[in-house]
Amino acid sequence: MDRGECATRLAGAGHGVLATVHERRGVDAVPVCFVVDGDRVVIPVDRMKPKRSPRLQRSVNLDGDPRAALLVEQWDPTDWSRLWWVRATLERVPPTGGDDERHRSLLSAKYPQYRPDPVTHARPIHSLLVLRVTELTGWSAAGW
Amino acid sequence: MDRGECATRLAGAGHGVLATVHERRGVDAVPVCFVVDGDRVVIPVDRMKPKRSPRLQRSVNLDGDPRAALLVEQWDPTDWSRLWWVRATLERVPPTGGDDERHRSLLSAKYPQYRPDPVTHARPIHSLLVLRVTELTGWSAAGW
Repeated sequence: MDRGECATRLAGAGHGVLATVHERRGVDAVPVCFVVDGDRVVIPVDRMKPKRSPRLQRSVNLDGDPRAALLVEQWDPTDWSRLWWVRATLERVPPTGGDDERHRSLLSAKYPQYRPDPVTHARPIHSLLVLRVTELTGWSAAGW
Repeated sequence: MDRGECATRLAGAGHGVLATVHERRGVDAVPVCFVVDGDRVVIPVDRMKPKRSPRLQRSVNLDGDPRAALLVEQWDPTDWSRLWWVRATLERVPPTGGDDERHRSLLSAKYPQYRPDPVTHARPIHSLLVLRVTELTGWSAAGW
């Protein structure tokens, strides 16, 4: 798969799995919602999916080592000619204030669950993780 | 989710995402087929899904650092009360010769694609990665 096709499939994926570096365990992996904005991947820390704290392990890991990977994929238990995956290698970057509202809007457009409550105006997104795509690779059974 | 529920969901999952340590990139992530055998996770290196070489990056990574994580999950774009994930923290261990045939049988039972060809008797599984589960954790939106 060429880089353009990888980028298209990454942007079109409904969710992905984020892998980060954990000092003791070596690696962690967790499903995430995300949007793509140019060469950035934006991952929300939300208030929707119940958590013990908004200070998530993925953020702790990225503070310790900014390197990460996001995998999106298609699985099919019976027809393996339909399998594909795309992996973005990422590096966490500081969020730029000017992009924050646009990133929140992109997330709300992709995920209706992230739209502010129409009555209370409560915003389901607590904060954003912004990561720069440094490599993009993919595999497709059909495209081989 | 308690450990028993995590173990049940891990064993019942059709596939997962394996995260490994990459010296330069920090982490890698790739979808994998697997079976659970007691406290072991067994991942085949197969000849089915086209690859450049059976010497896969995941094996190179595990040779450099035996730590890994396997994530299984349920995603639902509309009903987030159905979301759950389970993560097994893993350490690669040397395969024990006596377990090899049983592991191949477990894989063939779970994935018909791995059954030897009835005519040529060709075996789709090239080799096995065996990893020990050192931690098991999970999250469920419904169970919160």
